[in-house]
Amino acid sequence: MDNHSVIGKSTPRTDYLAKVTGQACYTADIKLPGMLVAKVLRSPHAHARILKIDGSRAMKVPGVKAVVSGFDGYGVKWGVFRYTQDHAMLPTDKVRYIGEDVAAVAAVDEEAALEALDLIEVDYEPLPAVFTPDTAMAPGAILIHDQYAGNINVHVHIDVGDVDRAFGESFLVREDTFKASGEAYAMMEPYAVVAHYHGGRLELWMPNAGPHVRAKALSNLLRIPLDKVNIRHINSGGAFGGRSEVSPGDFVTALLSMKSGRPVKLILSREENAISTRQAHDMIATVKTGVRKDGTVLAKEFKVIYDGGAYSSTGPIAASIPFYVYEEAYRFPNLRYDGYRVYTNKGIRGMYGCHGRAFLAGNEAQLDMIAGELNIDPVEIRIKNGLKTGEETATKSRITSGSLGEPIEKAAEKAGWKAKWGKLPQNRGIGIGCVAIMTGFPMGFRSGSSCSVKLNDDGHATVTTGVVDNGQGNESMVVQIVSEILGLPSGDITLVNADTEVTNLDPGAYSQAATFVGGNAVKKACEDARRQIIEIASEKLEEAVENLDLRDRTVISLRNSEKKMPISWITREAFFRAKPVIGLGSYIPKIDFDREWVSRPFGQMAGTYSFGASIAEVEVDEETGKITVPHFVTAHDCGKALNPMVVEGQMEGSAVQAGVAAITEENLWDGGFLLNPDLLEYKVPLACNIPEIETIIVESGDPEGPFGAKEGGLSVRMNSHSAVACAVSNALRIQFSELPLTPDRVMKMIDRKKEGEDR
Amino acid sequence: MDNHSVIGKSTPRTDYLAKVTGQACYTADIKLPGMLVAKVLRSPHAHARILKIDGSRAMKVPGVKAVVSGFDGYGVKWGVFRYTQDHAMLPTDKVRYIGEDVAAVAAVDEEAALEALDLIEVDYEPLPAVFTPDTAMAPGAILIHDQYAGNINVHVHIDVGDVDRAFGESFLVREDTFKASGEAYAMMEPYAVVAHYHGGRLELWMPNAGPHVRAKALSNLLRIPLDKVNIRHINSGGAFGGRSEVSPGDFVTALLSMKSGRPVKLILSREENAISTRQAHDMIATVKTGVRKDGTVLAKEFKVIYDGGAYSSTGPIAASIPFYVYEEAYRFPNLRYDGYRVYTNKGIRGMYGCHGRAFLAGNEAQLDMIAGELNIDPVEIRIKNGLKTGEETATKSRITSGSLGEPIEKAAEKAGWKAKWGKLPQNRGIGIGCVAIMTGFPMGFRSGSSCSVKLNDDGHATVTTGVVDNGQGNESMVVQIVSEILGLPSGDITLVNADTEVTNLDPGAYSQAATFVGGNAVKKACEDARRQIIEIASEKLEEAVENLDLRDRTVISLRNSEKKMPISWITREAFFRAKPVIGLGSYIPKIDFDREWVSRPFGQMAGTYSFGASIAEVEVDEETGKITVPHFVTAHDCGKALNPMVVEGQMEGSAVQAGVAAITEENLWDGGFLLNPDLLEYKVPLACNIPEIETIIVESGDPEGPFGAKEGGLSVRMNSHSAVACAVSNALRIQFSELPLTPDRVMKMIDRKKEGEDR
Repeated sequence: MDNHSVIGKSTPRTDYLAKVTGQACYTADIKLPGMLVAKVLRSPHAHARILKIDGSRAMKVPGVKAVVSGFDGYGVKWGVFRYTQDHAMLPTDKVRYIGEDVAAVAAVDEEAALEALDLIEVDYEPLPAVFTPDTAMAPGAILIHDQYAGNINVHVHIDVGDVDRAFGESFLVREDTFKASGEAYAMMEPYAVVAHYHGGRLELWMPNAGPHVRAKALSNLLRIPLDKVNIRHINSGGAFGGRSEVSPGDFVTALLSMKSGRPVKLILSREENAISTRQAHDMIATVKTGVRKDGTVLAKEFKVIYDGGAYSSTGPIAASIPFYVYEEAYRFPNLRYDGYRVYTNKGIRGMYGCHGRAFLAGNEAQLDMIAGELNIDPVEIRIKNGLKTGEETATKSRITSGSLGEPIEKAAEKAGWKAKWGKLPQNRGIGIGCVAIMTGFPMGFRSGSSCSVKLNDDGHATVTTGVVDNGQGNESMVVQIVSEILGLPSGDITLVNADTEVTNLDPGAYSQAATFVGGNAVKKACEDARRQIIEIASEKLEEAVENLDLRDRTVISLRNSEKKMPISWITREAFFRAKPVIGLGSYIPKIDFDREWVSRPFGQMAGTYSFGASIAEVEVDEETGKITVPHFVTAHDCGKALNPMVVEGQMEGSAVQAGVAAITEENLWDGGFLLNPDLLEYKVPLACNIPEIETIIVESGDPEGPFGAKEGGLSVRMNSHSAVACAVSNALRIQFSELPLTPDRVMKMIDRKKEGEDR
Repeated sequence: MDNHSVIGKSTPRTDYLAKVTGQACYTADIKLPGMLVAKVLRSPHAHARILKIDGSRAMKVPGVKAVVSGFDGYGVKWGVFRYTQDHAMLPTDKVRYIGEDVAAVAAVDEEAALEALDLIEVDYEPLPAVFTPDTAMAPGAILIHDQYAGNINVHVHIDVGDVDRAFGESFLVREDTFKASGEAYAMMEPYAVVAHYHGGRLELWMPNAGPHVRAKALSNLLRIPLDKVNIRHINSGGAFGGRSEVSPGDFVTALLSMKSGRPVKLILSREENAISTRQAHDMIATVKTGVRKDGTVLAKEFKVIYDGGAYSSTGPIAASIPFYVYEEAYRFPNLRYDGYRVYTNKGIRGMYGCHGRAFLAGNEAQLDMIAGELNIDPVEIRIKNGLKTGEETATKSRITSGSLGEPIEKAAEKAGWKAKWGKLPQNRGIGIGCVAIMTGFPMGFRSGSSCSVKLNDDGHATVTTGVVDNGQGNESMVVQIVSEILGLPSGDITLVNADTEVTNLDPGAYSQAATFVGGNAVKKACEDARRQIIEIASEKLEEAVENLDLRDRTVISLRNSEKKMPISWITREAFFRAKPVIGLGSYIPKIDFDREWVSRPFGQMAGTYSFGASIAEVEVDEETGKITVPHFVTAHDCGKALNPMVVEGQMEGSAVQAGVAAITEENLWDGGFLLNPDLLEYKVPLACNIPEIETIIVESGDPEGPFGAKEGGLSVRMNSHSAVACAVSNALRIQFSELPLTPDRVMKMIDRKKEGEDR
């Protein structure tokens, strides 16, 4: 039983009204005096040497103010790790994928910019190209980056216990291989940026998940001091992992502004967005599992190959994340992981909120097969092997709250699992998927957040924090915490956030840190301010500090409700004393900062872990291969739902984005050419595809989280595809091997099954 | 001997480059998407009842988006004190001066706005008008505001000691009356504002001296919560006291934006600026002085009548300030002051940096006459009666540093006073003027300032303060203090200032508080940050905190220069510890907050006082009455010159603005009609009028001021007119009685003198 007044209550988000009425300002809405339009010239080759780039004719087009290529940069290459710095943003040596940014113009209008684009002369010498990890890793294959032998960008190798002996001791061992096509992020707002370089200072507006991380990268790439790179607050039309780090467009637009001395806006078309911004990885995962007769997993061996496209981008993290969200969920005493991220001549691939579906759904589907062979209920085998508080993952991270078992049990009960498993009519199936999500993973000193809150003379509060909102409600989260602790209605709270000039470091909407890390800093800042208010009130009201509380803009005695005083009186008194009420708070998760993604993947990885289980019911049309998902149940341990309505919204969106996508979404390629760059050809779930979704909020109460909170629903984004894939496998009584489960693939499964039955 | 590295050194201001290259952004440069142009309909009557305002025809003009009048407001009236709240900004009852804002339109372009302006129908019933204090105070005169009997806006009465007895005991008593026309502020940038009301929030860009004070007034007038009124940072093209408080234009433009839902820009023409914004007061001062035979002043009696125009505006403060800057300079054991601010049907009058010249120059000229009668050197009589550290003013303010004597002595020596007084050729004269300036006068809890400084991960600093810069170099002052204390070059310092959303309360460039109050808060914040850096460094370097210093971006041991570490290493370590380096500092001057301008004008008025003396040499052309000022010496006790070049610049500008203006500047009236609203007719000093100016910085080292600093040159703005007027009187051997000393007035003095000689 808590006695919170705002926390834990479903309240409308602070951004709803502006967004539904169209008042909210997005990057495309920005107009600055003298602003130019940017257009990017893109590579027509998947792989080619650049012999010449000549923009002189383009510069002569009336209205053109700048033309830039990689030769205008400083040759600095970017990568999330030191050993993955391969991306110059604008190339000077080679192009490495169709659609790569090669040059750009800024002009007074779109017509002039497009005319000039045609006049930029680029001479290429085409090179052989590789389009799949197989061909890229084959001996003698052309190298996309000279320094990466075998085109292997990153190889993550983890070995725990004695895997080979454990397989030997196992009652049953299975090995299966699963494939999945990569997905598009398909945010409603395409890539957009406005850059304005003036007086030695670069200002940038763009939908963006990590202002401070991006500022740091641009500072390095453009050789501008970090504090002179100011990323400004702006609304974001979806991120899903795709807007966390610097992109070629940021760099290009900034360069154009630096060269022209004018503000410049770049907005990509839907097609450009699809071919030249980050997308999810295609992947192949081979999973080998050894179990005891009772279903206890003894050993796991994973080999995962990620199609990394032409550059490292954020992919080297993505190449580990699916593995981690799985090893954080289950107890694996012996384990071997080999993750290979391989360069190909395709567009850049990065972190995606739902990534790793071949690996995750594959693991879960195999577990179902094992359970079937051992005659164990899939729910039981998952609970038996699930981690819980106090245990350690294979890579030495301690679980600080919750367990995998709790969401599984709650979801199974709500879904009627016991009544349905093995008892559904033909062509109906039920399946379960589970993961655990790390919150706040190592980003060095950028893992922490700090917040300040000032109380104004009218008793209202202004809170300054780096917390960024990409649509998930983080701004509301901050306001709610302030509201709770300072006893103020949300209308009395002004939020200043996601602006690198005035806010302190914050990880951004990265590593699920916003609530756990950013929220913690906000809470501490407010507690600091609250203490200052109560100390003055204690003196004024002649009441001990422990008897005073803040409620409804008032400091009030808990013993005598007649002893009270408006907060604004206190804040004014504080100004008179030259001690204005300013609360400061900082938080950094208790992680092992020596942990490293490749060279030392052991130690405490995250501040906390959140467990989740999703259960899908599906129906397969045997004639057409079409799958429908009539019912979906998902349980997520968010620690504490600060705003249940928001958590439910995140869970529902996640179930659709990952679960329904598992039957529709994939990038289709012809060599290095993306076949479906628009939303007519790329099938995002439509309203008619969306199942009845039941959400279950599990609250394990994390000891470190603000009010016990962790994160608000990412587990659903990473287990819903498993639930749907397992349910389809269950419906057809045959294991899936490839995602998405489009009608053609389902028909193949049906054919395979029939073949098996015929034999 | 100090050992400062930046403080006390003449360094270029941080804003110079942008300003001289035209890069600096002013309000007129702002363009926002959908921004409308505002035009104001002004009263053609000096006094008339408003019978009807009908904007319906104006609204029909294509492109017109809003028409407003006072009927769109809330009827709230503004005034700096509770008892002077007489100004509705847009009237609904009466117009009270020619040029008063009556209604306004916002349209897509200027043509549409002007066309619509003509179509606003206003019916007036003309009323009798009064144009001088004499007629306004006459029995039976029409009342401009019903609640102010006799049209007396404010009557300040101060009585100290026994004035009548002291006159009786005096060896010599003189009584003289002096007049002066009011001046225009004549800032280079006319009144300009951009207002944008969106999402319940009002944003305002405008040249402005008091963002927080203005936000509070607009919050009241427009019924918008204070924290939703965000005054933004923008450059200012001069203020001189005229941009401190809310103006009709702010209100009108905000209303237009609220009604149209679009951003709105209003820029006044030079003529509109002259008739409808604040101007300085016309005044008449009667001064009676009683002295002992040795020149010791025994008693002073002052009666000053200020022509206040149609509204209180900031005038009620202005009606006391000339008196205070004089009583702070000299020892007056018995004193009576009666200041009357009287309503007339003329434009609004407010505080002006040089105001009170009839009173101040009159007092000084009379002192010269007395000195002459007693055969005492004017310099001697001033030193004898000047206040010094430890003494109290007549109204009970203690002097904490410096003395009037020191600047007088230094100026006299530099000017060669002894060699010149009484020995100059015919038609040449020399004169001296003195005042003392209060720094940080009571504005309630808004008298204080607070600052935060955050150290970024690159070791650079971002300082957030309410300090505002109107051209006097306050931004540089802040950067210099940060630079000194944190050992960082100015390029490593980002300043966030004068934005009411992110900065804490600050008095603004009001009451000369920027350095003494705002600078103090900045210094304290930096010292707090410095302490945090040194504490971590002490641990890392194994060196006692008292042996560590910050220099050149480095923490260094004073005992062993090999023990050192970049500041950026410390700031990163601090982030790892979740204790980012954030310094906080606040300061409020040690004043008597119960002191009140009218009802209780006793007690400590200011945090400190700065003394100043100016000496002018003039030459009179007897044929034409034209005066030239060949040489000007001014000494100002700024406590400590943080940047001598800036202080000298302030002193030079002040000498011109007050001293040369004393021979040229005046607003000329025909009844309520201003005859010289433009810069062709209104004679600001030109380059050819400017004397050779020698500045002397006196550094008394205030115990409370940051590094001993007070303010940077206002005394010169308030004593230069005295110096010039006294010099002219000295040249002609006849006391001036009216300012400015335009050729016609000088010819009258010459005629008077001749008449006297003839008799």
